[in-house]
Parts: sequence; C-alpha cells; structure tokens
Amino acid sequence: MKNPLDMQPRQQSICYDADQDAVIIIDQTRLPHEFVLSTLDSLDAVCGAIISMQVRGAPLIGVTAAYGVYLALREDPQQLQTALDRLGATRPTAVNLRWALQRMQHGLKKVSGSQRVAAALQIARAMEREDVAICAAIGEHGANLLVDLWQQKAARANSDATVLNVLTHCNAGALATVDWGTALAVVYKAVARGVPVHVWVDETRPRNQGAALTCWELAQNKIPHTLIVDNAGGHLMQEGKVDVCVVGSDRTAINGDVCNKIGTYLKALAAFDNDIPFYAALPLSTIDFTLAAGVGQIPIEQRSAEEVSHISGVDAAGELHTVRVTPPGVAINNCGFDVTPARLIRGIITESGVYAATRTALAPLALPPV
Amino acid sequence: MKNPLDMQPRQQSICYDADQDAVIIIDQTRLPHEFVLSTLDSLDAVCGAIISMQVRGAPLIGVTAAYGVYLALREDPQQLQTALDRLGATRPTAVNLRWALQRMQHGLKKVSGSQRVAAALQIARAMEREDVAICAAIGEHGANLLVDLWQQKAARANSDATVLNVLTHCNAGALATVDWGTALAVVYKAVARGVPVHVWVDETRPRNQGAALTCWELAQNKIPHTLIVDNAGGHLMQEGKVDVCVVGSDRTAINGDVCNKIGTYLKALAAFDNDIPFYAALPLSTIDFTLAAGVGQIPIEQRSAEEVSHISGVDAAGELHTVRVTPPGVAINNCGFDVTPARLIRGIITESGVYAATRTALAPLALPPV
Repeated sequence: MKNPLDMQPRQQSICYDADQDAVIIIDQTRLPHEFVLSTLDSLDAVCGAIISMQVRGAPLIGVTAAYGVYLALREDPQQLQTALDRLGATRPTAVNLRWALQRMQHGLKKVSGSQRVAAALQIARAMEREDVAICAAIGEHGANLLVDLWQQKAARANSDATVLNVLTHCNAGALATVDWGTALAVVYKAVARGVPVHVWVDETRPRNQGAALTCWELAQNKIPHTLIVDNAGGHLMQEGKVDVCVVGSDRTAINGDVCNKIGTYLKALAAFDNDIPFYAALPLSTIDFTLAAGVGQIPIEQRSAEEVSHISGVDAAGELHTVRVTPPGVAINNCGFDVTPARLIRGIITESGVYAATRTALAPLALPPV
Repeated sequence: MKNPLDMQPRQQSICYDADQDAVIIIDQTRLPHEFVLSTLDSLDAVCGAIISMQVRGAPLIGVTAAYGVYLALREDPQQLQTALDRLGATRPTAVNLRWALQRMQHGLKKVSGSQRVAAALQIARAMEREDVAICAAIGEHGANLLVDLWQQKAARANSDATVLNVLTHCNAGALATVDWGTALAVVYKAVARGVPVHVWVDETRPRNQGAALTCWELAQNKIPHTLIVDNAGGHLMQEGKVDVCVVGSDRTAINGDVCNKIGTYLKALAAFDNDIPFYAALPLSTIDFTLAAGVGQIPIEQRSAEEVSHISGVDAAGELHTVRVTPPGVAINNCGFDVTPARLIRGIITESGVYAATRTALAPLALPPV
C-alpha cells in the first residue's frame, strides 16, 4: 500500500479545473489512509460532498457551496433558488455557508438567465482566490503573535527552550479552507519566519479530524507535531508544555463568543486556568454580525450516533474496516460544536488584524452587505 | 453472537473460589464485546492481568495484588519479597497497590514460613470483603448528596425535572473495585433510595473505559445512561444538562488534589465554570498521606502509543478487529492521568463521610499504619 504520508503534489483542498469544467476536491473522508481526489460535476455531488464531509471546515464549505451554485445553474439556469435552498440545508452551523450563498444570490440577482452560468463561475472562482489570500493574511497576523511569544520564551532567564508549543483542536488547516488554513496558517507563516513550532494535535473525537487531517497536513508540510487524545491538553498545560492555543471557528458572535468543534471550550478553560493565551483564527466571514452573543444562542448540530459508536481504520494488512467500539444499542448524544465564551479568548485573529474578543473591537469589522 | 448486554449472573470483579483454590476475575479487556471470566493461579498470571488491564481501577488492583502475594507464596513460601517487588512494579500510579502490598507485608512479617500461605489467603480474603463494605459505605455517603440535589432540583419553581443528571469519567464502578464501585456506588445507592438518576458517560479515550465498561455496567444494573465523547461534557454543562459530576481517584494528596484518569481536570474546570458540584469518591486507602500536594508532584504514567493509534471493535459480522486510526508513524504522547486541583472539588466522598478537599479536613483521616 502506498503510504499516504509520502508527499503529495501541492494540491488545494478545492480547485476549478478549466479543462474538465469541473471542481476537484481532496476527499477528506479517505485521509489519512488514502489520498484521493474527487470530481464534483453536479449540485447533487456538491451537496453529497458537504453532507458526507468529503469537504468540511467553514471556509471550505463556503467556497464549495459557491461552486455548487455554478454547477446547479449549468444543469439548469432556472434552479438558482433550489440550489440555494439545498446547499443551505447541508450543514447548519457554518455561517460561511450562508454568507457564500448570499454572495452568490446577490451577485447573480441582476444577471440575466443566459449570462448567469458564466457569472456564477466567475464569482465562485473569485471566492476561491480570495479565500487563499484571506487565509494567508490571517497567517501573517497570527505569526506576529507567535514570533513575539517565541522571542519572549527564548529570552527568559536560563531558557533552554528549543520549540514553541502550539496546541490546536480539530482541523483548521489548509484542508478546512482552500489553502493555508486559519489556525494552521498561523503556524505555517510563523515557521516561515523562523519560529521552531511544535504542534500538539488533539485527535478530536468523534470524527478524529485532528488525528486524520491535521497530522496528515502537518506531516505534508514537515511541521513537527505530536498527537494527543482530547483528554490530555489540560495536563500538558499544567506541566508548562503548551505556550499558546490556536483554533478555528465555525461561527463567531459579535461579542467574541466562538463556536467551534465540540471540546474547544474545555481547552479554552484549561488555557485560561494556566494563563496560556488562547486565540481563534478566522476570516471575517465567520463572524455573524447579526448575533449579539454565542453562548446558548447558536443552535448546535446534533450528529449521528454512529460517529461515536463506530470508527474506521486499517488493519495490519492495510485493509480498511469499520468497527463498533461501544456496547450494541447504547444511547448516544453527539453534539458537534460548543461555544467558548469571549472572556476565555485572548484575541481573534482575522485577515485584517488581531482584535480583542469584544463587541467594541469586532462590531466595526462588519463586512459590507454582499 | 451472544449479546454481552444480556444480564450476566451477579458476579464480583474478583473473588476467591475455594473449590478451585483460585482467583476468578472478569476479564475487562474483553468487555463490552464478550463477558469472559478468567482464572488467576500464579504470581505471573496476576502480574499479567494487572499490566494488561484485565483488572484495573485502583481498589481492584489493590485486592488483586493481595491475592497475587498469596498465589506467589503458594508456589514458594520464600518468595515474599520477589512477589512484593514484581507486583509493586505493575502500575505506578495507584496508591492502593502500594497500600495493599504493605498490608500484606506487615501482616505476614511475624508469621512463620509454614503458616504464611494460609495467613496470606486470610488477609487477601479479608481485604476483598472489606473493599465491598467500604464501597457500599462510600455509596451511602454520596447518595445523601444526590438525594439532596434531587430534592432541590425537583423543588425549584416550575420544575419539570424528571431526572438527576450525573456526569462521570472513566470507570469508577463495580468493575474498578470488588463490587459497587466508588463513583458509581454513589449512583447505585442513590437509585436504591428513589433518585431518578441518568448518567452521562464520558467515553474516556484512549482506552474507552467509559464506553466499554461504564456503559456495560450501568446497563447490567438498569441505570439510564447516555454515552458522550470526552469533548462534550463542557457543552452539556453550559446547557444546564449536568447536575453533578462524580469521579473516582487513583491517588489523592492530603490537600485534596485528585489524581484520576486523564481528562478529569478538564471536566472539573467546566463544572467549576458552570457552578456544578464536582465530587471525587474514593476509599481512604487512595489518599496518599505522605503527599502534601498533587499538582506537579505525582509521577504520571506514560503509556503506549498504540493505545491512541489503534482501537479494537467488532465489525457488522461480530468479528473483532484491531485497526489503526492515525497516520502511520505519527508521534504520540499518552499520559494516563492528570491531577485536578482541590480548589475545583466540592468534596471528597469516602467510606467515613464526605469531606472538604482540604488538608484540614483530610489529614485527621490518616489510616493507622498497617
């Protein structure tokens, strides 16, 4: 079996292939065991890819949905509303999905039927390019923080520090966006500036995006990293083995409350208890400027019991199996996200700079209506 | 395949079988997929059972080790010191192991060679009986708290409460002791007094003792329960869906710092942040009266990477597979325990009552030298 950790050719998580007139994605359900590209050429295919989490991560879902509108109109220029409705229902939490669909809707509003298909492709491609630039900018702003933290750590009296330890949860990397990522963009850009980053990767049950995706992506980029169970981060922080936490977000309220993958709140509590800076890195499109506060206000996606009871992996022969790890028929609650209160967050890293997690700092950033 | 959730005959986790002159255990590595009893008839077998975690849980490890001394002396009445050394090295964290071995050593000190074997069996059997009584007493003292919490919840204005929600981590149940358990004894005794308990069960990565053992044990005892990933507890607490947390302990310092399965600290932080009472339930033999404080002071067992990278379960045909869920060769850190600072703990539930997690409250409880 080919080792999927062998370096793959540089590949965005999503890109438009003009020759095939189709959208190519990395099938993230196959990682880390196989590196498989998949072609999306219809609205059905795009909805299926989002629902099955072949693509996931708030920014990437947004761009994928934009291409979904294009592919839907290519099939039938009259089915704009159908496409918006179906794509909008694929994942309830990611605000970027709603934002991307609104942008498509507004951009296509004044375009007549015959021009709509071309216009949809044009907007989607622009969103793809912009996402890359936005994530690169998030990375640069966050890297400033890591450069400072590393200089402070190295300058401490009797310091024998050899690495800056960053803890991250889930996958807010290149695989969660078109390229670069949000939280991991900060890591990549800091490493490019000479910071010797080591990443603690939460495995991120139940879907194991940390173990499967973040570890794979960091290995591709040759960033030193160590996998831990989600239970371990608090202990590592107590032991002084974490210098900073950086996570992504699926929806951020205007007061700085951050909705992100389930378990983020627990890490923010531990960081706060140990006086370790905790940052969320996100594009401004993740901020829901209609939402005054996040805790108790964001509907949390309840996902299937099978994500908890069953797990897939390869046996010694490299063969893939899905096995049940729980007693049969046990009742399971599987909430996909939680909300970290702003009071636990040191700052919000965006493409336009780093801001306090407060209404005062965030409200002026409201994006112009699309 | 027999459903292992079908009620099994009432069976202690460990018992001495006088007919066979052997020690019978439930093989906990086979749960929840199979219910298998295993016979221990030598020092080697006992050491193997503890190391492989066929028996686990601090109180159960202590009693098992006591029987290990008996079986060693039956093989060779001269190998007391060998037995103490080998058994003492099986698991580094559980203070009960050290306590049980000291008790055997002191009890056998003045017994001459020919009487030693019989005396060792007598002491081990006494420890087995005492553990049952101790756990039952822990349960009764803790049940007082749950009865109070339930009365308060039910009495709240406009209450439509139908259950008292208890969250637990790992398995501090009958399977972690000879019978009853520590944290789960509290649940069992509260249910016996009419409290309608529902238990949130943390799956407890990496070894999944919550999913595999606590769910199995609660089903056997017909206690309503729901399995969650370790990441979920904080969110449930924010949502008001947890009324109290009860966990066990592997070693407790005299100031009330509680060492328990990795991840306990994160749940204690979340409980504190949401003003939810957090209790540790433990026999006095778990308190290390030589240890002034726990945080940073208790050596934490670093366990194998395979516990994180690999997992076992059954496929659709009921066949057991072990699969790798991570990229091959990824670096893994697997610390087995963490320490919850006393300031986060509402009380310590013991066989002699419920105490504040403070030196003032705990120091007078020091057990007489064995």
